Amino acid sequence: MPDSSPSSIAPERPETAARGDAHPGEVGARSGDRPENGPDEERFETVYPASRKLYLEGSDGVRVPVREVTLSGGEPPLRLYDTSGPQGRDPRLGLPRTRERWIRGRSDVEEVPREARVPGEQRARVPEAIRRDRVLRGTGTPTQLAYARRGIVTPEMEFAAIREGMEPELVREEIARGRAILPSNINHPELEPMLIGRRFKVKINANIGNSRVASSIDEEVAKLRRAVLWGADTVMDLSTGPDIHATREWILRNSPVPVGTVPIYQAIEKVGGDPADLTWEVYRDTLIEHAEQGVDYVTVHAAVLREHVKATDRRIGGIVSRGGSIMAHWSVVHGEENFLYTHFDELCEILARYDVAFSLGDGLRPGAIADANDHPQFAELKTQGELVEVAWDHDVQVMCEGPGHVPLHKIAENMDKQLEWCHEAPFYTLGPLTTDIAPGYDHMTSAIGAAMIGWLGTAMLCYVTPKEHLGLPDREDVKQGVMAYKIAAHAADLAKGHPKAQEWDDALSKARFEFRWEDQFHLALDPVTAQAYHDETLSGAGALSAKFCSMCGPSFCSLRITQDLREEKRRREA
Amino acid sequence: MPDSSPSSIAPERPETAARGDAHPGEVGARSGDRPENGPDEERFETVYPASRKLYLEGSDGVRVPVREVTLSGGEPPLRLYDTSGPQGRDPRLGLPRTRERWIRGRSDVEEVPREARVPGEQRARVPEAIRRDRVLRGTGTPTQLAYARRGIVTPEMEFAAIREGMEPELVREEIARGRAILPSNINHPELEPMLIGRRFKVKINANIGNSRVASSIDEEVAKLRRAVLWGADTVMDLSTGPDIHATREWILRNSPVPVGTVPIYQAIEKVGGDPADLTWEVYRDTLIEHAEQGVDYVTVHAAVLREHVKATDRRIGGIVSRGGSIMAHWSVVHGEENFLYTHFDELCEILARYDVAFSLGDGLRPGAIADANDHPQFAELKTQGELVEVAWDHDVQVMCEGPGHVPLHKIAENMDKQLEWCHEAPFYTLGPLTTDIAPGYDHMTSAIGAAMIGWLGTAMLCYVTPKEHLGLPDREDVKQGVMAYKIAAHAADLAKGHPKAQEWDDALSKARFEFRWEDQFHLALDPVTAQAYHDETLSGAGALSAKFCSMCGPSFCSLRITQDLREEKRRREA
Repeated sequence: MPDSSPSSIAPERPETAARGDAHPGEVGARSGDRPENGPDEERFETVYPASRKLYLEGSDGVRVPVREVTLSGGEPPLRLYDTSGPQGRDPRLGLPRTRERWIRGRSDVEEVPREARVPGEQRARVPEAIRRDRVLRGTGTPTQLAYARRGIVTPEMEFAAIREGMEPELVREEIARGRAILPSNINHPELEPMLIGRRFKVKINANIGNSRVASSIDEEVAKLRRAVLWGADTVMDLSTGPDIHATREWILRNSPVPVGTVPIYQAIEKVGGDPADLTWEVYRDTLIEHAEQGVDYVTVHAAVLREHVKATDRRIGGIVSRGGSIMAHWSVVHGEENFLYTHFDELCEILARYDVAFSLGDGLRPGAIADANDHPQFAELKTQGELVEVAWDHDVQVMCEGPGHVPLHKIAENMDKQLEWCHEAPFYTLGPLTTDIAPGYDHMTSAIGAAMIGWLGTAMLCYVTPKEHLGLPDREDVKQGVMAYKIAAHAADLAKGHPKAQEWDDALSKARFEFRWEDQFHLALDPVTAQAYHDETLSGAGALSAKFCSMCGPSFCSLRITQDLREEKRRREA
Repeated sequence: MPDSSPSSIAPERPETAARGDAHPGEVGARSGDRPENGPDEERFETVYPASRKLYLEGSDGVRVPVREVTLSGGEPPLRLYDTSGPQGRDPRLGLPRTRERWIRGRSDVEEVPREARVPGEQRARVPEAIRRDRVLRGTGTPTQLAYARRGIVTPEMEFAAIREGMEPELVREEIARGRAILPSNINHPELEPMLIGRRFKVKINANIGNSRVASSIDEEVAKLRRAVLWGADTVMDLSTGPDIHATREWILRNSPVPVGTVPIYQAIEKVGGDPADLTWEVYRDTLIEHAEQGVDYVTVHAAVLREHVKATDRRIGGIVSRGGSIMAHWSVVHGEENFLYTHFDELCEILARYDVAFSLGDGLRPGAIADANDHPQFAELKTQGELVEVAWDHDVQVMCEGPGHVPLHKIAENMDKQLEWCHEAPFYTLGPLTTDIAPGYDHMTSAIGAAMIGWLGTAMLCYVTPKEHLGLPDREDVKQGVMAYKIAAHAADLAKGHPKAQEWDDALSKARFEFRWEDQFHLALDPVTAQAYHDETLSGAGALSAKFCSMCGPSFCSLRITQDLREEKRRREA
């Protein structure tokens, strides 16, 4: 079993080694060659000045990235959790396939031709270097849950444990117990493993993906890179437009974080857009297509039952989940129970072969304050709990999705019921939004609810951007959404008492008190913005050594006065 | 006693009547005449399309503004609390002096020459129309607390009651009990009365004011107008630079909301900037100057005692309150107790004569997560509680200021202790900021804490702008700060169950579900931004009747699918 502490630390090296395939030249491609690298593309070095990426080395090739912020004034550097992934890669070549050796080394997988049919025109949109005709599939049950239950600490678990600053054995136990998941499809070797569970850091998800109305593949890859650079722990590709397969392939081959999808979005495209025409077979084939591509978790709206749907008629907001409304429509039209519920065992069998995790959709989540915590919502949550146990019976990892729009005083009930009814499977919530009145600011209305529910035990927070309810988010919206949720997640980590959370706050506050302005900027969640705001009214070398800023001016800086006070006291005591 | 329900409703009329002085021409001045009206100045009509201002009429000239949003589809209009004040006024002439008749009618005030000396150059910067050599002063104790205790419902109380949709008698009781304040200096006749108390809507304060480094009078008046247009319930003028008296005069004469100040900032300017040179006499004269100008509440750091200051030495963040650090410095240098504490009775006597409310400063509030809920902070809070009782003995209205930087799990303790130790006097908190790591985004780090503490009972939330810790906020920062805090306050109102809170959310969600896009925009907290975000990717008349937006595109709109579903069910049942 691997040692619990990293054996050594190495600075970042060019990522040329350990690729499963042998395409040369993935380092050093000029930015002009990269379709998504416009002049405004942000890079690690520009976004995080005074930071460098280090790798903490574990056993068996485990190399865990951290971002180290260099400080002045004799202060030790601060190491922060890093999601940005290998830098400077040409997206047409994808990221290094670090996990490939671990996966193949476990001898419970085989390489097989693709089972799902991929239309030629979609295939053609995938660059040759990342196109694959053969994929991995389990001969047994190659899931992290199965390994954990057998007492095995995988390299993925060790990686994630080092990242969290925790013991690998604790990670294994939490996964075995179902309280944490480590989403890691065997066809996603580019992944840097991470954990979703309430003993660990609260994670955030950024939704990307195009719609029929807006965006392109390039734009989506740029959103992915931007999202992980700013700190997204997972991304969901919610594309609904054309190029859905090719977009996903580009995203997966370039994603260092788990990728989630909602297969029903593609299934409905395949049948021409009418929910009534959906069939179990089309859905199953789509799910296999996602699994073969390397999707790490899938939202499945299997808990939207006919009897729950009936009860939504008196809602102000109706059904606001896309998948939920589709399945509701299907079952009403056909007069049958939701086929995702009736075929749930088969779903488990498919996911088990690739280690795709379930994210049990909350198709009936409230989309308005008036509908929060109503009967259909909680009835579905109870059904999610049933399905959690079925997934566990198949050694499939599972988490539960949660609301939605919920006022502050009704948030705790959501968490309490989820823990009880869903047997402590990780909770993954959208916000919740604590009011409906502020379209254009829903990253804020929801960050309030997200911080609160994160503190109470939610393992991952699905971000909301300022464009929610209004349109498809662009790159800047993605950044604003990620920022709001990094704040919410960190506020929750502090409140939960995560052992590594407060050292960041303390380092920044110490820099602030000591007027180490540049350190304060470098330690900020968004260093460049912090410095730009400061420099708007006071800039230059003098401003960076000044014991004040333009907010209070030279006479009124409380920190300077406090320093003088301490000096005065020392003088008097001497 | 006035009737509890408004007797009639009148549309806005030109504000020419009822001014105490008789300067003509205050309506109709062209925008070129107004120093602060640049081309980007926002106006009621442009910021709130489809809204109009109405007045609910009470007794004795009470006319309470509301903003009424007109809706389509046969929906009734929605009436919202309005803080924007009379529109279209030339700031050199000030707002109408509506309260003047009520104040003089109570016969416990006299008009006297100014007691405080105003330097000629400051006086010269005040436009002639709003310059005053004589002011009002109480012959008795003209405070709302004194009236309430005597069983009198003043026009101010009636005004505020209509605004809240509550009974005037309830308002009187809450004021009499000290659980609410109605800040309303007898020299601020331009005021539209409002309440700060936990039975009522959670209020927000916007800080404005220049510093020695940045800004101008024009800019500060523009910030005031912008702040109240967006919904600030009070403003604090925290100016510390030159022109401090004239800036305040301009602000007061143009402010429909209560204005708070921190007199120590001006007192220290008067003695040349060194806290050691402060004297009780300089402070007292400054306080009288503010009271004569019409300041409605003053932050007084009277609870920063020497023994508490000692205990701050081990803090990471030191003392982060400007006033707190000044008083701490003074008492250490002089080896004496804080003169604001030792002269507290005299302070009460001054404030009682003008009905200025105390805002007991939290000079030792934590400025870093590491310092939250520490001994100095709570020791000061306990002393605030003592002083609340002293103020009440003098019939002076009082609220208590609170932190600061506090992680989520330590917020409730602040509220609990404040209620207990300060005898339920209203709590007025800065944020609190729930993490230190995000300079540039502290409107968000703090809106999270503000929503939470507002729910728990805080009566007013002091906003934080994105520039906090970095520089003086500009007009756009003021807007962003107000937006974040309107959201926090409304989220808190919903959670507290304020009877009028949820109707706003319901109206908006109903519009959303029914694809009344324009109604959705008009009902938004910030209509123009909501529409602009929507129109970025889909615009024109077609987009406004479309049953989708660019986020999901035409096939995937869950609301459209839900509508189809309801239609399908109706068809089947028919």
